[in-house]
Amino acid sequence: MTELTLRLYPLPEAVRAATCSFASVDAAVQTAMLLIQLGVPLARCELLDAQAVRAVNARDRLGLRQSPMLLMEFHGSPSGVAEQVETAEAVASEQGGEGFDWADTPEQRSRLWAARHHAYLSALLMRPGCRCVTTDTCVPISRLADNINASIQEVEAAGLPYFIVGHVGDGNFHLGYLIDPNSPAEREVAERLSEQMVRRALNMGGTCTGEHGIGLHKQSFLVEEAGESSVDLMRRLKSVFDPHGILNPGKIFS
Amino acid sequence: MTELTLRLYPLPEAVRAATCSFASVDAAVQTAMLLIQLGVPLARCELLDAQAVRAVNARDRLGLRQSPMLLMEFHGSPSGVAEQVETAEAVASEQGGEGFDWADTPEQRSRLWAARHHAYLSALLMRPGCRCVTTDTCVPISRLADNINASIQEVEAAGLPYFIVGHVGDGNFHLGYLIDPNSPAEREVAERLSEQMVRRALNMGGTCTGEHGIGLHKQSFLVEEAGESSVDLMRRLKSVFDPHGILNPGKIFS
Repeated sequence: MTELTLRLYPLPEAVRAATCSFASVDAAVQTAMLLIQLGVPLARCELLDAQAVRAVNARDRLGLRQSPMLLMEFHGSPSGVAEQVETAEAVASEQGGEGFDWADTPEQRSRLWAARHHAYLSALLMRPGCRCVTTDTCVPISRLADNINASIQEVEAAGLPYFIVGHVGDGNFHLGYLIDPNSPAEREVAERLSEQMVRRALNMGGTCTGEHGIGLHKQSFLVEEAGESSVDLMRRLKSVFDPHGILNPGKIFS
Repeated sequence: MTELTLRLYPLPEAVRAATCSFASVDAAVQTAMLLIQLGVPLARCELLDAQAVRAVNARDRLGLRQSPMLLMEFHGSPSGVAEQVETAEAVASEQGGEGFDWADTPEQRSRLWAARHHAYLSALLMRPGCRCVTTDTCVPISRLADNINASIQEVEAAGLPYFIVGHVGDGNFHLGYLIDPNSPAEREVAERLSEQMVRRALNMGGTCTGEHGIGLHKQSFLVEEAGESSVDLMRRLKSVFDPHGILNPGKIFS
C-alpha cells in the first residue's frame, strides 16, 4: 500500500463493558444470538468456555467464576448504553446468566478484558510444553450454538484437552486443541477433528476460516467451499494485481 | 447474478422522521455536518433547497415553508431516538433552524417524505417542457457546505433555473439545471457548470459521481479522478469477470 484514506468516527460518548457467567456454553451462545437477533448493537461480544476461564484465573488470579462467560461491550449515548445493558441483563438472566460485572472506566474495562486478551497464552500454560492447534470456522449466527455444541461433543469424545474462545457476535469461534508436539497420534486426532469442524461449518452455510485466513493449510477447504471455478476466478483476479506472483506467493491457492 | 445471500436486520424498535427549515442552504448543511461529526447515527438526512420546496408545494399542496429544509430520520430504541431528536433540535436551533415537524407513524412519515420523493418530478413542472441536467458530485462531509455554496454561486451567476436535493448525510447532493432542450446555449452553460462542479469535487478529495455512476458521460472524469493506471487496472479486473465484453459494454471505460 502506498496511500490510505481514513474515515474518522467519533469516540462513543459512553462505553460499558460487562461479564456474565452461564451454566453452559450453549446458554452463553444462545444469549449472544438472542441479543443480536433483537438488534442490540453489541460493540464486542466474546465467549470464554470454563477451561479458558480456569486458565486465565490460574495465570492472572482474576478470581472469575470457573464457568462459561460472555464478555460484552456497549457503545453509544449514556441512555442508549443503559438501555442496551438492561436488555442484555434481561436476556442473559432468561438463559440463567448470573454474576454480572459491569465496568465503566477504561481501567475497569481493561481488567475485564484481560481475561479475553490473555486466554490463549494462559491456556497454553495449562499443559506445559504443549502445542495449540486452533480452529477458525464461522457460521451464520443462527447456527452458532449448534456448531459449537457439536464441536464440544466431538472433542470431549476424543479426550483431547481444549479450550474455546469465540467472537460470538460474528458467528466465529476458536477451539484450541492442546496437543503434545511429540505425539503424532494427538496431532492426527486434532487434524481430524478440525477437518470435521470445517465440513460442518460448510454444511451450515459457513466458511472454513472466519479470520485466520486460508494460507497453506486450508487451500483444499477453500475449493470445497467456493468451488473450482470461483477459486480460479480469485486466482485470475489476484494475477491482475500481482502479474509476477510476488505478493505472498503460494498462499490461498497454489 | 445467479445466487444471493442476504443478511437480515431487525426493524428498528422506534422510528421518527423530522423536517426543519433554515434561512439558507448553508445553515441546513452545517446542521447535517455537525450532527454527523457529533456521531448522531442519522438513518436518513436529505436536503431540499427553497426551489425544490416551492416545487413540491406547487404540485402536492404540502404547505411547507418555502425555505431550505432538512428531512431527517432517526432509528433505534425509543429513548435512543428521543436522545437523537433532542441533539438534532439543539444543533439545528443553533443554526437558526425552525418549524420542526416530527412524525412517528408510518402515515405521518410518508407525508413528510413525499416532499423528497416528489422533488425531481415537481421541479420539472416548474419549467414546463424543460430538460433536467443533474449533477452528482460527492465530497468528504467536512467539505460539503463549501462545495454546495460554491455551486450555488456559479449557477446563480449563470442565471439558469435550478434546484438542489441532497443526500447530505453522505456528502452527496444533486443540482438539477432546468434547461430548454431547444437551446444549445443553455445546454452548453449547464455542461460547463457541471464540469466545474466535478473539478471542484476532485480538488476537495471527492468523486465525480456519488451514486449515478460513470456510464458514458463521465469516462474522462474517472481518468482524472483515479489516474490512467488505476482505470487500466479496473478494465483488467472487469475483463476477468467479463472476458467477452458482454456485460454493459462501453460503459465506465471504453
